[in-house]
Amino acid sequence: MAPIAPRSGDAIFANVERVNAELFTLTYGAIVRQLLTDLEEVDEVNKQLDQMGYNIGIRLIDEFLAKSNVSRCNDFRETTDVIAKVGFKMFLGVAASVTNWDADGTCCSIVLEDNPLVDFVELPDNCQGLYYCNILSGVIRGALDMVSMKTEVTWLRDVLRGDDVFELQVKLLKHVPEEYPYKDDE
Amino acid sequence: MAPIAPRSGDAIFANVERVNAELFTLTYGAIVRQLLTDLEEVDEVNKQLDQMGYNIGIRLIDEFLAKSNVSRCNDFRETTDVIAKVGFKMFLGVAASVTNWDADGTCCSIVLEDNPLVDFVELPDNCQGLYYCNILSGVIRGALDMVSMKTEVTWLRDVLRGDDVFELQVKLLKHVPEEYPYKDDE
Repeated sequence: MAPIAPRSGDAIFANVERVNAELFTLTYGAIVRQLLTDLEEVDEVNKQLDQMGYNIGIRLIDEFLAKSNVSRCNDFRETTDVIAKVGFKMFLGVAASVTNWDADGTCCSIVLEDNPLVDFVELPDNCQGLYYCNILSGVIRGALDMVSMKTEVTWLRDVLRGDDVFELQVKLLKHVPEEYPYKDDE
Repeated sequence: MAPIAPRSGDAIFANVERVNAELFTLTYGAIVRQLLTDLEEVDEVNKQLDQMGYNIGIRLIDEFLAKSNVSRCNDFRETTDVIAKVGFKMFLGVAASVTNWDADGTCCSIVLEDNPLVDFVELPDNCQGLYYCNILSGVIRGALDMVSMKTEVTWLRDVLRGDDVFELQVKLLKHVPEEYPYKDDE
């Protein structure tokens, strides 16, 4: 039987349940504002957003695998490509690209030109250290964790800090071998 | 010139920017969890969710008026009808209905059978007093405030509490006359 072809990000996005992007943007803004009020320190807010993203990523990966027909990727290169081209499109409705590979194929950048999270957002002076979209780095880290890839995800460029695009560096720290806690005949 | 006809919720929803509903659901879940951790008291979380919703509502009304071609509604009855049939569809992608009008037309219920906020959600025993979707009551209150209607919005039924639908009672407290701080010839 021929394998099922992976579906394009556009095709999946057109068929999943969706909500209004502005509602999402404002809701996300409300989270960030809430965290800034509660935690006060910008660094703590960055950490918390990342952690929230991580918790979302470990669940979102299931929807991703179920809806995308993507089978297990062969390597890190293929995985990041799928995240950028299928994942971003499927969840945020925007496309991302992968660039800046290092020589041994364990570190690259995901570049995002359009990002619905930051519509209408400007960072006030006292929030210049904030990684406003840090939830995204957490989502990627969480999702990759669930497919056995321990990664470090860092912002290199950020439109809210005056850059022309968003650039997330994704670095593979460890490829954890899969463990099978069950036996086939059980 | 004939007035521009209001657009249906479906038509608007098909044309606005959207994001994946599961991402929205999980992000909203992350807010609620965060508030429960930070504020500890369920009543405080209810208040905070309502306040966050209010802040979203006072901004979302602009998008709503801009995209829906809805002109100023004549009365409270027409307004709630538009919220249920156009607003819910346009932002959450689900339809709501209006029912249980009182005799003088100042109190009714908005009933929602489907609600993307609560997918995969179950309230643990220590959160039974939580109005998980309280952000919605805040959004309605905020949006109505911006069109001069002071309201009180209360949950009467909630699927997470074992009811068969979500029912929000919307009560008009005061119709604030519009103020014009400017003169036409200025």
